Parts: sequence; structure tokens; C-alpha cells
Amino acid sequence: MSAMELMMETIRSESRRVDTAMRSDLEEMAPEVDPLLIKVLQYCLFNGGKRIRPLLAVLAARICGRRDPGIYRLARAFEYLHAATLMHDDVIDNADTRRGKPAVHIQFGIVAAILAGDFLHARSMAIVGSQAGVEALDVFSAATGKMVDGEFLQLRNVACFNLSEDDYRQAILGKTGVLISAACEVGALWAEAGRKQQAALRDYGIYLGCAFQMIDDLLDYQGDRGKTGKKTGNDLAEGKMTLPLILTVERADREDRARLQEILGEETGRRKGLEEVSGLIAKYDGFALTRTRAEQMGALALAQLDLFPDETCAQERMVLQGLVNFVLKREK
Amino acid sequence: MSAMELMMETIRSESRRVDTAMRSDLEEMAPEVDPLLIKVLQYCLFNGGKRIRPLLAVLAARICGRRDPGIYRLARAFEYLHAATLMHDDVIDNADTRRGKPAVHIQFGIVAAILAGDFLHARSMAIVGSQAGVEALDVFSAATGKMVDGEFLQLRNVACFNLSEDDYRQAILGKTGVLISAACEVGALWAEAGRKQQAALRDYGIYLGCAFQMIDDLLDYQGDRGKTGKKTGNDLAEGKMTLPLILTVERADREDRARLQEILGEETGRRKGLEEVSGLIAKYDGFALTRTRAEQMGALALAQLDLFPDETCAQERMVLQGLVNFVLKREK
Repeated sequence: MSAMELMMETIRSESRRVDTAMRSDLEEMAPEVDPLLIKVLQYCLFNGGKRIRPLLAVLAARICGRRDPGIYRLARAFEYLHAATLMHDDVIDNADTRRGKPAVHIQFGIVAAILAGDFLHARSMAIVGSQAGVEALDVFSAATGKMVDGEFLQLRNVACFNLSEDDYRQAILGKTGVLISAACEVGALWAEAGRKQQAALRDYGIYLGCAFQMIDDLLDYQGDRGKTGKKTGNDLAEGKMTLPLILTVERADREDRARLQEILGEETGRRKGLEEVSGLIAKYDGFALTRTRAEQMGALALAQLDLFPDETCAQERMVLQGLVNFVLKREK
Repeated sequence: MSAMELMMETIRSESRRVDTAMRSDLEEMAPEVDPLLIKVLQYCLFNGGKRIRPLLAVLAARICGRRDPGIYRLARAFEYLHAATLMHDDVIDNADTRRGKPAVHIQFGIVAAILAGDFLHARSMAIVGSQAGVEALDVFSAATGKMVDGEFLQLRNVACFNLSEDDYRQAILGKTGVLISAACEVGALWAEAGRKQQAALRDYGIYLGCAFQMIDDLLDYQGDRGKTGKKTGNDLAEGKMTLPLILTVERADREDRARLQEILGEETGRRKGLEEVSGLIAKYDGFALTRTRAEQMGALALAQLDLFPDETCAQERMVLQGLVNFVLKREK
């Protein structure tokens, strides 16, 4: 089996196990909670997600030497928190669809979306506390804190068109990095790993998450709609400064920079300016530089895995490596 | 000092200590989180609340024999969760004001209100886990679960005009009882109380919370606006079936019941029907019966305190007793 095949097969088989653990949790709680809440939870949890966050917790625990199916009880917490975040985000962004289906607040109303998010949030924290202990709970709740903090940063940065690369890194850390990183770190804590291993897995998660988000932001300009299923240019249309644009604004000469600011400043005309903006980004190597940054992140993620040379965890290491390559090469 | 004076003085002095603990928490987090988030937290936390939930945690810990100022680090979690719930509720109910000031989502926008609620929610759970341990965290997160569950029940019961007294009890338990009860129970757990004491304080909280809500629902019909600061008849106008009305619908003859259903069924005419509905409730003793039920709840709450006859905690017992009497006698 090639590394890529092994990774895809692992994603498939582990996501089935995570799904089973989530289903049995819903069945357990069904007699005690409102049937409408159960319906909303089923709708938002079983939507074809790849369960990457739970998978990372599973792999982190195993690479630290603990192979115990009890991990699935813990791992589902990461999908719960992820789903809670998406539900609240879709309310906040007024997004109508999620994975091609109506968003929860469209299907069940805004009240149900907010409340079901709160419910999953509480349940995820209780799971982490009971399964992995108080230190893990601290890591997990700090991740929520940083996610919220990142969104406040975005809120303040709306219509601010001269963000620095540092601002961007902080924003994507909150958006993607911290939860992925928490999944890795909590998995390590559950396995009672040493401090070094714990830190290595936390950093692996940070770098993987940042690489993922950088490529995501690249695809928003360069993606093939046939593959991604999404129109390009959404970030530009929303006035969101992502890395390709930030690097370009930093490097552009006075005239080009003024033109970029002009296009960004006109809220209704931004989408029309997509081709011109893309041309300017290409002119200043903004796309290539973004890819290079993502690759640097990927390399840093891979380097963390050197701490786990043990042959007994070769397979987990291979999958964690495969995920980095997958993130960097993805076209959708 | 009379029992009532002792209680009022305790509320005043303890709420100052809770406020100090919350302020120092905000100061601690200020360097790490977005300034806008801090602003929202200050706005929603320092609004003149009496800090009853933190106070209950403090009293519960002391009556179980642990007198240690570390309790304030724990106690603030109950105000955080309470504030988080109110912020999300105001978004859900589209409420414009809270304690005479613009609600958070009016003042800072819906995005800030949802996110700040999530932030406080996460922080409250992390605090309970780290300060009081995993069992306390379970109690605390189950309280959130039940609160959400109660709101789903309400969601399903909208425009359902033949609720039973049992439905009502379940709804007020979720709305008020479980968090108050969790504050008491977690305080006991923090003090490493025995199972019996823990259960007694949990039940005290349940009964106190239910008595509070019953009187609240009574005041919505009978309150003096000069004292409560609120118009009467809001529950009726929203088509909310509270205990005075439920007891009346159960007891009314066929003709009166049909008339009640008619008034309730006409969404726009309900407020106009307030006087007529109040007359029917009075005719069937709905108000007096509701007060009796609340007094029964109060008596049950007081009975739980018999488990704490120790003279060393006479003052705490007196305050806990005072709270029950205060709740039953309040006019606002």
C-alpha cells in the first residue's frame, strides 16, 4: 500500500469508528433530551465530514504509545466542538449552506442553531475533562478562547486593508490552527506522553492547520470550481485580506498598491476586480510566495515527527506525514 | 442584625468579592485577548447583578465546612455561564434591553454577542474543571445540557396551550433550577462534602430555583410596575403558558376553557385579553394555587438545610434560609 493509500484508508476506517462513537453517544442521550435537539445534532454531525480532528487525536495517542479503543470516546469531542463552531459561524456569517445542504439555522431556525451549538460545546468540554483530565480540559478550552479571540480580531480587521503577515498568522491560527493543535495535544495528554512529545504534537497541529488554511486561501483565488465546488474570489468579494493579497500589498509599487486599495475600497465592485487583482498578485509573486509559506509550514510540521522514530508507530507517523502532503497538494 | 439584614449584607459583601475575582480574571486575560472582547465582557458582566449564583457556591462550600477564599476563583464561573446564557438568550428572543441597558447584541452586534457567550462558556467550564475537578465539571456541563434541553422543550411547546403542570416544572427546572442547583452542588463538591450533603444542597438549589421562577411567573400577572419595572402580561402576550394559567386551564369549566383558548389562539389580541384572563385565573384560584406551589417548593428547600445543624455554620444556614424567604416574598 502506498503512503497515500494508507492515509486514505486510515481516514475512511477511523472516521467510521468516530461515527460509531458519536452515534452511540446520541443513542445514550436520546431518552433524556428533547427529540428536536437529537434531530438537529444528527443533522449537523452526520454530513459526510472526514473527521480529521478526531483522527488527529487518535493518531497522536497511538504515536505516543497508547493503543486503546477508549480513545474514540475522547476523539468525538473534537468533532462536537468543530460542529458547534460551524453552527455558530454559519449564523454569524449568514451562510445558507454547508456541504451542499441547508445550514442548520436555515433548516431548523437560528434558535436551534445557537442552542445546539451550546449543547455540543458543553458536551465536548465535559468529555475532554472526564476522559483526558483537567490539563487537557485547559488546552481544549484555551482553544475555544483563541478561536473566539481570532474572530474578534477579524471583526476589528474588517475593512482594514493593510494587514501584516503577522496579523494573518494570528487570524488563521485562531480559525484553523488551535483546534487541530488541541486535538493532537489532548491525544498526547490522554496517552500520558512526556512534555516533549506533547509539545511536538501540539506544534505539528499548529503547522498543519496553518498550511491547510494558507492553501485554502490560495484555492480561493486559483481553485478549479469543477474540483472545489466553490466560486473563486469569495475572500476578495468580502474584503478579506488573505496571504496572497497581503504579500502583494506589501511588495507592490505605489501605483499598484493604490489600485489595489481602490478595488478593495469599493465594496460592490470587488468581485468584478478579481481578474485584475489576480493579475497583480501574480505580478508580485503573491501566489508563489504563499505556496512557499505553506510548504515551510508543512516542513515544520513534518520535522516535529522526528521525535517519534520508534518502529512500533511507523504507520501512525506515515499517516501524519501523509496528511501534511495531502494538505499541500490538495486541489479542493 | 435581623436575618433579613444579615442576608442583604451578605449579598452585598459577597457580590463585591465576586466582582473583584472577575475583574482580576479580566485583567489577567487582557494582554492575551482582543480588546473588543474585553470590552464586551466588561459590559455584560458588570451590570449590577446580585451574583446570586456565585453566592450560592460560596455558601454551599462554607456550610460544608470549607472556608477558603479560593472559592471566589471557582464562584465566578457561575456568573460567567449565567452571562453567557443571557447573551445568547437575548439574541434568540430578540430582546433589545437587559437591566435597562441595550442588550449586548444591540450594543456590539450579534456576532460579538454569540462569540463572547461562547468565550465565557468555555472559560466557565475550564474554571470548574480546574478548581473543582472532573465530577464538578460533569454537574456543570449537565446543567448547560439541561438548560438547552429546556429551551428546546419551549421551542416545541410554542403555541401549545394545554401544557401540564409537569411540562411546566420541567421547563422552569431548565430555565432557572439547574444552574442554581449546579452552583450549590459544585460548591459542595469543592468542599469535599459527603454524598448526603451534596445531594441536599443540589436539591436546595432545585427547589429554590423553582420557587423563584413560580413567583416570577406570578409577578408577570400581578406585579406592580412601579416595583418590578416591567409591564405585566408579557408571558400571556407571547403565548407562554405559565403556572397560573396552566392551573386555570386544568380547572376551568368547558365554557371558560374555550374562552381562554380563544384568547390564546389570537396572537395579536392576547395583550388586550390580559384583564379577562387575569379574572379567569382569579376565579379558579390560579394565583393562590401558584403561590401555594411556590411555598411548597420553598418549604422543601428549607427542609434540605436540616442536614446542616452545626453551630459553626449557623450564619450560612441563616442566609440560605433568608434567600428562600426573600424569593417567596419578593415583589420585584
